[in-house]
Amino acid sequence: MVVVMSPEATDEDIARVVSRVEGVGGEAFVSKGVVRTIIGLVGNIDSFHHLNLRTLRGVADVHRISDPYKLVSRQHHSERSTVWVGPEGKQVPIGPDSFTFLAGPCAVESAEQTVEAARMAQSAGATILRGGAFKPRTSPYAFQGLGLAGLQILADVRAATGMPVVTEVVDARDVEVVAEYADMLQIGTRNAANVGLLQAVGDTGKPVLLKRGMTATIEEWLMAAEYVAQRGNLDIVLCERGIRTFEPATRNTLDISAVPVVQATSHLPIIVDPSHAAGRKDLVVPLSRAAIAVGADGIIVDVHPKPETALCDGPQALLGTELRELAQAVRRLPGVVGRVDASTLTR
Amino acid sequence: MVVVMSPEATDEDIARVVSRVEGVGGEAFVSKGVVRTIIGLVGNIDSFHHLNLRTLRGVADVHRISDPYKLVSRQHHSERSTVWVGPEGKQVPIGPDSFTFLAGPCAVESAEQTVEAARMAQSAGATILRGGAFKPRTSPYAFQGLGLAGLQILADVRAATGMPVVTEVVDARDVEVVAEYADMLQIGTRNAANVGLLQAVGDTGKPVLLKRGMTATIEEWLMAAEYVAQRGNLDIVLCERGIRTFEPATRNTLDISAVPVVQATSHLPIIVDPSHAAGRKDLVVPLSRAAIAVGADGIIVDVHPKPETALCDGPQALLGTELRELAQAVRRLPGVVGRVDASTLTR
Amino acid sequence: MVVVMSPEATDEDIARVVSRVEGVGGEAFVSKGVVRTIIGLVGNIDSFHHLNLRTLRGVADVHRISDPYKLVSRQHHSERSTVWVGPEGKQVPIGPDSFTFLAGPCAVESAEQTVEAARMAQSAGATILRGGAFKPRTSPYAFQGLGLAGLQILADVRAATGMPVVTEVVDARDVEVVAEYADMLQIGTRNAANVGLLQAVGDTGKPVLLKRGMTATIEEWLMAAEYVAQRGNLDIVLCERGIRTFEPATRNTLDISAVPVVQATSHLPIIVDPSHAAGRKDLVVPLSRAAIAVGADGIIVDVHPKPETALCDGPQALLGTELRELAQAVRRLPGVVGRVDASTLTR
Amino acid sequence: MVVVMSPEATDEDIARVVSRVEGVGGEAFVSKGVVRTIIGLVGNIDSFHHLNLRTLRGVADVHRISDPYKLVSRQHHSERSTVWVGPEGKQVPIGPDSFTFLAGPCAVESAEQTVEAARMAQSAGATILRGGAFKPRTSPYAFQGLGLAGLQILADVRAATGMPVVTEVVDARDVEVVAEYADMLQIGTRNAANVGLLQAVGDTGKPVLLKRGMTATIEEWLMAAEYVAQRGNLDIVLCERGIRTFEPATRNTLDISAVPVVQATSHLPIIVDPSHAAGRKDLVVPLSRAAIAVGADGIIVDVHPKPETALCDGPQALLGTELRELAQAVRRLPGVVGRVDASTLTR
Repeated sequence: MVVVMSPEATDEDIARVVSRVEGVGGEAFVSKGVVRTIIGLVGNIDSFHHLNLRTLRGVADVHRISDPYKLVSRQHHSERSTVWVGPEGKQVPIGPDSFTFLAGPCAVESAEQTVEAARMAQSAGATILRGGAFKPRTSPYAFQGLGLAGLQILADVRAATGMPVVTEVVDARDVEVVAEYADMLQIGTRNAANVGLLQAVGDTGKPVLLKRGMTATIEEWLMAAEYVAQRGNLDIVLCERGIRTFEPATRNTLDISAVPVVQATSHLPIIVDPSHAAGRKDLVVPLSRAAIAVGADGIIVDVHPKPETALCDGPQALLGTELRELAQAVRRLPGVVGRVDASTLTR
Repeated sequence: MVVVMSPEATDEDIARVVSRVEGVGGEAFVSKGVVRTIIGLVGNIDSFHHLNLRTLRGVADVHRISDPYKLVSRQHHSERSTVWVGPEGKQVPIGPDSFTFLAGPCAVESAEQTVEAARMAQSAGATILRGGAFKPRTSPYAFQGLGLAGLQILADVRAATGMPVVTEVVDARDVEVVAEYADMLQIGTRNAANVGLLQAVGDTGKPVLLKRGMTATIEEWLMAAEYVAQRGNLDIVLCERGIRTFEPATRNTLDISAVPVVQATSHLPIIVDPSHAAGRKDLVVPLSRAAIAVGADGIIVDVHPKPETALCDGPQALLGTELRELAQAVRRLPGVVGRVDASTLTR
Repeated sequence: MVVVMSPEATDEDIARVVSRVEGVGGEAFVSKGVVRTIIGLVGNIDSFHHLNLRTLRGVADVHRISDPYKLVSRQHHSERSTVWVGPEGKQVPIGPDSFTFLAGPCAVESAEQTVEAARMAQSAGATILRGGAFKPRTSPYAFQGLGLAGLQILADVRAATGMPVVTEVVDARDVEVVAEYADMLQIGTRNAANVGLLQAVGDTGKPVLLKRGMTATIEEWLMAAEYVAQRGNLDIVLCERGIRTFEPATRNTLDISAVPVVQATSHLPIIVDPSHAAGRKDLVVPLSRAAIAVGADGIIVDVHPKPETALCDGPQALLGTELRELAQAVRRLPGVVGRVDASTLTR
Repeated sequence: MVVVMSPEATDEDIARVVSRVEGVGGEAFVSKGVVRTIIGLVGNIDSFHHLNLRTLRGVADVHRISDPYKLVSRQHHSERSTVWVGPEGKQVPIGPDSFTFLAGPCAVESAEQTVEAARMAQSAGATILRGGAFKPRTSPYAFQGLGLAGLQILADVRAATGMPVVTEVVDARDVEVVAEYADMLQIGTRNAANVGLLQAVGDTGKPVLLKRGMTATIEEWLMAAEYVAQRGNLDIVLCERGIRTFEPATRNTLDISAVPVVQATSHLPIIVDPSHAAGRKDLVVPLSRAAIAVGADGIIVDVHPKPETALCDGPQALLGTELRELAQAVRRLPGVVGRVDASTLTR
């Protein structure tokens, strides 16, 4: 059972819930978030029912957990959610009514490269800029990102272009500094089960882009989201980016079915990353079209002004013809499947 | 190296090639097809070059094999192919310019059920009827199909509706009789590496619908197609139907990327089976939209007038609302991605 | 429900069962085997119970199916079975009390190579000779085996060495001829779901070596065995030979746990093929030791006098030092885990 | 290229290397470990060769990276390594000459349960105690471990039994406190790609037990070890614990081949965890026997005095008959494959 406290709940209100639960032999796990506190109950559910917790001061809601995840479930919140990204006045929605295009370089390499990539992305229709300052790599000898300098570049490019910025955080100890610079925090596929990091981004109150673990089931992925949500942060956007299978023709196998499966069970928005799924730029445009048609709430795509010199994932970055084709798909297809261009909805 | 003989080549022409090859110490594997004969050469390739085989009477073409598959490769035939299905005057194309909708019941259960399903399919825009008379099942205690009686029902429904029929053949010993009734022979996922069966359908000269083995790499799948092609039958349509992965939310994981990957390396048409990939009817419409948008040459979908009583795969069969939604997607989306409705192109 | 008829049951006895079943609205699927007939019932199980089928003449047993497989289940036959391979007087057991070593060349290439490999195998302790005359290959351009000539070579080598012979059959149409020459028929991994072939080897009454499909679950594998058993042939030995996973360091991943899992649920003997699992000869000895220690009833290993010129799977064939190490493991380890060398038990 | 500094190298020595590398346009990544400093070079390798870095003061070794991993490779260190665990005088080896048995409860639940499990483990022959104080769980609502209180219990049980303790650390921020209590730090399967955590345990200088990511290739696993090694800590023991495959009969598929594959390419010791691989206690004894026979340097097994009330992974914990069988296998089998019982080698 999960007790969701209202944003106005006091410490006293929280202590009251805990004491009642303990009074009937149960245990109460308190998670204080920036926005709200959530209390997980473990023990005899029947005894909890008699407590009438919903009537206590400061309690907003009480859920019985039947799905293994709860706060992110449509059982808990039947309407699909919209997450708003960016500073007030320039907030871009990701949600069920719109289609949102995120693009940028895999890694921030220099101010020039980043601003150029951002301009390319923007002309193609993108409204949110992606770019990695901290890069988790399989090899300790591969380029690990510019770190703080990269964050500063992203902030400068946001100022220059007006695009909100999403960037990855790979270590719980960096969450605070990244949250100062970024509009949305990305959890990468390698950290999809890194509980400490999930909780740390949950604590910030910033929107989170949660990539699917490359070998996570959909249920495990939603459980990861639950770790974020449990800290009081429900501004989570899921991102399908391909799973590991036996097929070697693509870097990962894009699990396109994950989009309608997630939408049937969770209220969270879900977008698709065709670049990291395929690892080949010739597949990015057809997979982006498939993502739009299947009903994804957005796509996130690698672009780079000079893919051949990119320090990270050059073979999958778009420019020139492919980017123009993608821009065309992003303009035409969402309308056919009942979506509005997110750029027209900023608030 | 592969020598493709012309359709007019005589036995003498073939013997001449074999004798030249053996004269330089090589081996020649002769595959006589209904339409043409193909001779595979094994041995020292350099010595074969000196034979100038291309200049011999009856030789249409000589290919050096660098891809593991050859006849089905775009290196061999750079234009993407169109396969025509059905009797003259009612032939329906499956190929790069059109979009073809195949539908029908998973299994033929009775004349009434089959004709009703065919009418449903036809009103939704389908132009080729699918239906199983021989069913390969994991359990020997599951319904194995009506067999010959099922073939007769399919032939009757074809006569009644004018739709060409595709049906599965599961045993090399049944190929002849199935080929008498059907317009297109389907090889199912469980037989994707059944060499004897692949060769047997290759010998018939009838169009073949080759489903991907549920655990076959794309390269292995194209090698299976090569077994058919090597018997002189190039009228092969590939069908992506999901692969086995760790994800339990869907029966299989639809590998949507396989469509552009195959189109980049093989000239054969490729269609998508969203019903068997998902195993859940609520995913069939979004996955069909994704298939059209990614550039598939067609889709094949289970429909059944009473899914709840279906003897096979009822949970994935469409009717009512979903079928109407699918019909709408099939009418609207192909045009957006530059495709013509195949039903307007019969010849 | 499955009705197992006694070997003495007459056609009349069979017809009586069918007619009773149909009399209560059920369907009866009759499978006549060489040794016995089995009748599968589909319909309302409660109505079948009232028929008291077990009391009818010619009925040996009636099973209610709760496992998806039945005849191969330990629920049906709680003692683990022993399968005897070879002509009377030279029969070698594969079963729970002994440890059986099968070895030989992947493919029969010539009389010399085969007899030499057989002698190597025999000196290392092998008691059954393996060798492929019909080879199922991924590519139609790869060596497909010597066919009938290969069978004749195997028969000659059996005469020379006294070793019973197991060889693969890849096409239902070849089963009869292969059964004339071989002591045991192998179904390869690519044909593990080829129902027609499974039924055809079931009809011969010869022992069957059933390799696991490289992507078959254990349950699917036992269902494949059930297809053989349903034809009245229970002399089936299962062979774990590695499954397809994401790990590229080995050709397949040897699922060593499959041995105790199968032994817990099926009475059939199970052996391990470390050569095809690993695809690398340096792993064959450690994996063979693991197979013995885990409790396998035998192992089957590739040996070749000149692996570097082998036409099939040379990199995994043993000779010299490795073969001596393997011979030592086969002599010492089975006794430590309570097994007797099968060569001492021929009857 | 990687420069390994000698333990006596000064800051000045390090600065000299960096400055030379930067002088030819390269970049130098300095990782200061507790024992030694390692400098990774990125840039033009040819220009680095001219620097004759090996001749500089404080440089112990210079490696050209051809394997993606280097410090953990046998190319770098051809002899297989032994890692010693525990306080001086009670150090237990894990390495190529011995066989080491680690056992204990999955989770520390109470002082009583832990000491009882430790006594069970010790009587069965175990020499190192395992037990989880911090548990990474898929669900935020599952038992997450006793934390600090659990560490204290482990320290008490170590004092009572003399067994060195290995316990998991799940968050980089906890590494320091866990290292105060534990003799060996475990990285769990969910954190196998958590770079910050790998680096943090690398910084401690304590032995590390690095579980394989449940979906990590062997190469990725060795790269994770390289992240630890790069911080100057080479006391790493690898632990195979099963990988995710399509087979549902076991929780994971034990990749037994990983043992000889790792031993062929890395000098690090490798042990096997049959409990977490199988998830079923009836498989633990046969899989342990397989692990010993294949040549593993040890096994780690769950034991629990009352598995039916265990807060974590009860179904796989041994006691009674199975534990006695395991004790017998651990006594008899290692000698047969040339190993000495590690408990006789403490130093």
